[in-house]
Amino acid sequence: MIASPVLPGSAARQLIALRRDFHRFPEPAWREYRTTCCIIAELRRLGVPVVYGPAIHCREAMYGLPEDDSADLARAAAEDCDPALLAELAGGYTGCVATIEGARPGRTLAVRVDLDCNTLAECADGDHLPAREGFASCHAGFMHGCGHDGHAALGVMLARRLLQRRDDLCGKVKVIFQPAEEGLGGAASMVAAGVLDDVDVLLGSHIGMGLAPVGAVAAGTHGFLASTKMDVFFHGRGAHAGVCPQEGRNALAAAAAAVTNLLAISRTGQGASRINVGSLVSVAGRNVIPPEAKMSLEVRGATDEINAYMEDAALRICRAAADMYGCTVDRRIMGRGAAAESDPALAARVAEILGRVRGVTEIVPSHDFRASEDFTAMMRRVQSRGGQATELIFGADIASPHHSERFDFDEAVLPLALDVLTALAMELGK
Amino acid sequence: MIASPVLPGSAARQLIALRRDFHRFPEPAWREYRTTCCIIAELRRLGVPVVYGPAIHCREAMYGLPEDDSADLARAAAEDCDPALLAELAGGYTGCVATIEGARPGRTLAVRVDLDCNTLAECADGDHLPAREGFASCHAGFMHGCGHDGHAALGVMLARRLLQRRDDLCGKVKVIFQPAEEGLGGAASMVAAGVLDDVDVLLGSHIGMGLAPVGAVAAGTHGFLASTKMDVFFHGRGAHAGVCPQEGRNALAAAAAAVTNLLAISRTGQGASRINVGSLVSVAGRNVIPPEAKMSLEVRGATDEINAYMEDAALRICRAAADMYGCTVDRRIMGRGAAAESDPALAARVAEILGRVRGVTEIVPSHDFRASEDFTAMMRRVQSRGGQATELIFGADIASPHHSERFDFDEAVLPLALDVLTALAMELGK
Amino acid sequence: MIASPVLPGSAARQLIALRRDFHRFPEPAWREYRTTCCIIAELRRLGVPVVYGPAIHCREAMYGLPEDDSADLARAAAEDCDPALLAELAGGYTGCVATIEGARPGRTLAVRVDLDCNTLAECADGDHLPAREGFASCHAGFMHGCGHDGHAALGVMLARRLLQRRDDLCGKVKVIFQPAEEGLGGAASMVAAGVLDDVDVLLGSHIGMGLAPVGAVAAGTHGFLASTKMDVFFHGRGAHAGVCPQEGRNALAAAAAAVTNLLAISRTGQGASRINVGSLVSVAGRNVIPPEAKMSLEVRGATDEINAYMEDAALRICRAAADMYGCTVDRRIMGRGAAAESDPALAARVAEILGRVRGVTEIVPSHDFRASEDFTAMMRRVQSRGGQATELIFGADIASPHHSERFDFDEAVLPLALDVLTALAMELGK
Amino acid sequence: MIASPVLPGSAARQLIALRRDFHRFPEPAWREYRTTCCIIAELRRLGVPVVYGPAIHCREAMYGLPEDDSADLARAAAEDCDPALLAELAGGYTGCVATIEGARPGRTLAVRVDLDCNTLAECADGDHLPAREGFASCHAGFMHGCGHDGHAALGVMLARRLLQRRDDLCGKVKVIFQPAEEGLGGAASMVAAGVLDDVDVLLGSHIGMGLAPVGAVAAGTHGFLASTKMDVFFHGRGAHAGVCPQEGRNALAAAAAAVTNLLAISRTGQGASRINVGSLVSVAGRNVIPPEAKMSLEVRGATDEINAYMEDAALRICRAAADMYGCTVDRRIMGRGAAAESDPALAARVAEILGRVRGVTEIVPSHDFRASEDFTAMMRRVQSRGGQATELIFGADIASPHHSERFDFDEAVLPLALDVLTALAMELGK
Repeated sequence: MIASPVLPGSAARQLIALRRDFHRFPEPAWREYRTTCCIIAELRRLGVPVVYGPAIHCREAMYGLPEDDSADLARAAAEDCDPALLAELAGGYTGCVATIEGARPGRTLAVRVDLDCNTLAECADGDHLPAREGFASCHAGFMHGCGHDGHAALGVMLARRLLQRRDDLCGKVKVIFQPAEEGLGGAASMVAAGVLDDVDVLLGSHIGMGLAPVGAVAAGTHGFLASTKMDVFFHGRGAHAGVCPQEGRNALAAAAAAVTNLLAISRTGQGASRINVGSLVSVAGRNVIPPEAKMSLEVRGATDEINAYMEDAALRICRAAADMYGCTVDRRIMGRGAAAESDPALAARVAEILGRVRGVTEIVPSHDFRASEDFTAMMRRVQSRGGQATELIFGADIASPHHSERFDFDEAVLPLALDVLTALAMELGK
Repeated sequence: MIASPVLPGSAARQLIALRRDFHRFPEPAWREYRTTCCIIAELRRLGVPVVYGPAIHCREAMYGLPEDDSADLARAAAEDCDPALLAELAGGYTGCVATIEGARPGRTLAVRVDLDCNTLAECADGDHLPAREGFASCHAGFMHGCGHDGHAALGVMLARRLLQRRDDLCGKVKVIFQPAEEGLGGAASMVAAGVLDDVDVLLGSHIGMGLAPVGAVAAGTHGFLASTKMDVFFHGRGAHAGVCPQEGRNALAAAAAAVTNLLAISRTGQGASRINVGSLVSVAGRNVIPPEAKMSLEVRGATDEINAYMEDAALRICRAAADMYGCTVDRRIMGRGAAAESDPALAARVAEILGRVRGVTEIVPSHDFRASEDFTAMMRRVQSRGGQATELIFGADIASPHHSERFDFDEAVLPLALDVLTALAMELGK
Repeated sequence: MIASPVLPGSAARQLIALRRDFHRFPEPAWREYRTTCCIIAELRRLGVPVVYGPAIHCREAMYGLPEDDSADLARAAAEDCDPALLAELAGGYTGCVATIEGARPGRTLAVRVDLDCNTLAECADGDHLPAREGFASCHAGFMHGCGHDGHAALGVMLARRLLQRRDDLCGKVKVIFQPAEEGLGGAASMVAAGVLDDVDVLLGSHIGMGLAPVGAVAAGTHGFLASTKMDVFFHGRGAHAGVCPQEGRNALAAAAAAVTNLLAISRTGQGASRINVGSLVSVAGRNVIPPEAKMSLEVRGATDEINAYMEDAALRICRAAADMYGCTVDRRIMGRGAAAESDPALAARVAEILGRVRGVTEIVPSHDFRASEDFTAMMRRVQSRGGQATELIFGADIASPHHSERFDFDEAVLPLALDVLTALAMELGK
Repeated sequence: MIASPVLPGSAARQLIALRRDFHRFPEPAWREYRTTCCIIAELRRLGVPVVYGPAIHCREAMYGLPEDDSADLARAAAEDCDPALLAELAGGYTGCVATIEGARPGRTLAVRVDLDCNTLAECADGDHLPAREGFASCHAGFMHGCGHDGHAALGVMLARRLLQRRDDLCGKVKVIFQPAEEGLGGAASMVAAGVLDDVDVLLGSHIGMGLAPVGAVAAGTHGFLASTKMDVFFHGRGAHAGVCPQEGRNALAAAAAAVTNLLAISRTGQGASRINVGSLVSVAGRNVIPPEAKMSLEVRGATDEINAYMEDAALRICRAAADMYGCTVDRRIMGRGAAAESDPALAARVAEILGRVRGVTEIVPSHDFRASEDFTAMMRRVQSRGGQATELIFGADIASPHHSERFDFDEAVLPLALDVLTALAMELGK
């Protein structure tokens, strides 16, 4: 069993210790085995009911699931995770949902935090605080470069706080520990499994995102770009390029034609759109017509409609490019994020409550997100059922941009964020 | 009625006069109205049976037929052609077949000549002989730049000669005046109409083609490239490029993608292949997504199989390029030429006869053609039915390359070619 | 001499008669010879000083000038224009500037109107009012499809009105009759010639543009897209595609590569951008490597910076595409429009004055233009020198969208617009 | 030190033992450390003078040299190679040249053999003879799949034989053990170092290549395709594809444009040409504009001129594609093979000698090679200096095609080939 990283002492000390533990053992999307075991163990220790495994996921909607995670499971086992629990999580069923029932009647509130890290090698220089303080990643090639370590710690400590105050708590609070936010793979699975279906009020939050310093808090967010992530596989046929090139079906030629024409998808006049092919790999001998090519790409749009327009066009172009060279094509959806807006009424109510939390020095009504987040899938579900949702931003100075090897945030944000989330949870259930 | 250009005097004088008349009034593929009228009139005057019109053509195989030839008919009428005859030819039914029945039994021999000119403005400089001698083209933008004027004159004079010598002629000689050789459109139509189906021995011939001077004659030919000519039309949808580009279907983008990928068709290891897009026209306002594009292209191959491989690939790519941009595509076959080889046995027999014709100073067993000719369709038909075929080359100095605005050939080739064809016709029917 | 189309009677009758005369004789960019002659003649008749010809243009900045306008000049002469005046305008020096000096001191105000028509065949159906009323275009293939006929008429009548009221007029009013707005060619030339350099307050206006009905007037405009129009010429070398394709330099292949990659220019994250290739023409024989290709294109951007980014990328891609195929490339700028915003202070002042004009039923503070206009070049010049500028929109019901063959506007807008412009001119010079 | 694998017993037994030893320890291009050590050790043991290291190479012409071969050196050391010798070879200076001075005067003859293996995992099935007999590759991922193991063994045993017969040997024989034939990297380096500059007669040979069974020997070869192998690196700049794509320089887009247009290089009418892009690798996050791309490609041509035409065009296109997307490009030549023909006179002389060698059952005057070989670089050097060169083919049944995982040849070819090479060496120096 993992020793509890939640030390005795102030909430601030505990939050920081827990965040640093998560930081040291970063795990990427759908492979947050140690992280999940650690959270479940802590919640059980506290006596908080927690649900996990297939009960909170829908396999068909687990976008971007890795094919083989045996090495990840083995590593988690080697890192002292409970083997029985690991067996229940195996297959990518990471994350969990904790529920704190208030003693008083009220609405159902959900607070979502995310858990996964980036595929990024962490800086080892002495001027990078995690390295200097000894909590830099010990998983080579992986790093918490977006603050999800802090988010996960906040989730655990929030459950603990609310349990302590459950006599005054109205309604019920679900703390949703969502896996696989990077790549936009995890939210859809939880939504499809019904995790959000009893939720009246949904809160998400993110540290940093261009807001600073600690004390500045945004009550809502707008400008999420809808996005679809996909992998495309071109299948052709090899042949000797000198002797009988005509017998080949050139998958690399098909993929190259696709790249150029994907980038040429007609802009729409209705709002921002994006397309990017992040990688293309096709490897054969220099004298062999390449039989296979793999491409990873993403599209984005200011609205779901624009994103769907881009996604449809991308698929049409990949298919046609394959046809051009007598190849076939497979597509795998690796992630999806909707466009969404925070509910103005809820954001206004949040702003009002923020005004009463000590340490909040600036209240931003709505922050321009300008990127994609799969939390939007949860927002859309709750909103579509008559509930309300908002995403808060907790301002914090950061050492280097999100997703960079020197990313780090001012940990003073953690106790403030815990106070804010606690205040909101105590108030919004009424 | 057209006055007979066949002057009294020597065959040489008559040949040259006739060739110059044809040269002055050049007509392009499927529009050889005056030329055909002139030939039919002359044959009728001589009393040679002649067949023409739908009887010698198959509409489905008249590749590259122009949509509207009313102006051509009107011009021919203005040039004194018989209106009744023109009416019979209208719709592109140009060319004719003359038959000279020998008095003695024998095989059926066919001699094919072609009639059409090039789409080319003839040089008007004084050092260009047709200009200096006053027989340069009077049809602006058209010119006999390949020697078909001479071929047509030879066909008329050959019929006349054989008629004079019919008592000694064994079997039957068909002189096939084929329209639409440029673009490879006319031979297939005559083949499909059955014109070649009774032919035992088929002779074709060409002046020049890299062989010189007059006196050098090739008994056979190899190296014809099979070829398919096609026009491709991309249909999309216009839209305002500033306000709502996403509503367009960009036919020009589809055509451009097609061009690049057509040129990229994988070479075969089995022999020479070619592809060319000779024209692309897509015209819309600068601020309009172009709704239409038209492309003309050709493929070639050292064998019919290679040509078919290229044609299939070209069609596949055009369709896929249209799909890429949500467009549709039409294709129209404009011409076809097969690969073919002269029969070695026939060529050897021809070479033997050539040895007995005065004026033949060099006998080439087989000339490397290195281009395409639709005479091959006739060769293939005769060969497939058990007959034999060969294409002769009559050497001649030329002033400038074939298809150039200063092309002209040494007219001394004409009487020699007439002697050769006469000798072959008298001998091969035996 | 052209008979004056300005009839006796009410200003409304006169405006409509003048507009219909311009409508009947539409002339495209840089070829507004009759239109200009007509305006100058009328102004001279009134006694308004008018300047024209090279004095108001800068040859280097006359974007998109046609190479040969002799036919246009001949037509204008045949339509009774003064030959001496035509000779002064020849070479595209169309348009003019009228100046009305007020009797009282004040600022210099400029009102700009545009003159040119679209390249568009006007609808001849009886339900199209210009056809039914007999003032449809008599210049085949050209049509006033954007309302510039009305603008030009307003300019003439405004000069007349102000002359009548010059005793009360403060300062000086320049009425700028600008040619070549379509294609964004004309404003830059007048700016470069210094026409705007003494202007303190600049007013432009447009009929329609999505605002309706008559009575609704916008005091300002935002959302102009900066744009650059260019023609690109690829020069290669022809060759026989069957015999020696390697000797060619394929200009069509270069242009096709350019088209695809132009459309693939990376979107910017900073705002809207556009690119369109409206036409591509490359014509050679089917069996000839195409030696020349011509392309017309435009780029746009929400800001001048974005437009410059797109223009630079487009040029870079055309050059590289030419390099790819061993070709060279020329570019000709055909038009330029800047991004610009109406001055809020001026728009507010205009809105205030609008409130006092009878017939104005709705005042829109700022209309979203969402397209390109070369009036922005004039706005930017005046603003850069410390002056103020705004573009008004005169609401009007229209029969069919701008630039369509059935475009027509409610002529009731004309007298209202004249009242508005007069009121502004009388007031803003103070 | 490596124990000598040359067992006592017949030459046939020794040849086979040596070949199997080389087969078991295959080494790829420029990393033939153990193979070279083994050869040098054996030659020293015999007392044959041998030269190696920088003396026989020209660093600038060592195409395709790996960047880091420390692991290969370490492995060779672990396989008991002499550390001092390894130190002399380090840096890719593999291969060697042995010289046997005849006792009698005569010409200088060179016999070239090649040493390197393929990057190929050898079949481990029991029906694959090397696996069954226990000499399959023990270097995972590498295999002698082309017979160079046999070639190397022949070189060693030929030196031994000629030493034994040096009293009768006229002139001097250089046995050239050339590294890096696969990829066409090694010959050019030895040529540039002058290894061939004193050679009057040059012999190469290959086992198999479509000739069978053992006993059939070709005295010469034609149909080598000239070829150039190159790696191309596109360098751009990364950027976040959602937030600021315009700041990127898309190396993948450049590479994709290059692929399509490389395949579209105009065919030549002068003979066969080929181009293939065997691999393209560009890897960035899905949401990152890819900053780097690497491509491996080859061109071929029936003549050096055609190959140079293709190489020039490929380079031009890669550069232009990089320019299109604001990237830069590096190219590294990885191999070069010239077109070449065996000297007919020498081949005739060889054929004559073959007629006197026991076991030679069929003499082929010239074999059609239809692929590329860098031995041609040596042939061209010798021929250009007035010498003569030919490549022999030793017929042999093979188990599976060259470069396949089940390739194996009938070892009975080895003693016959040794007899042939010995006979030629003894005779041709005269």
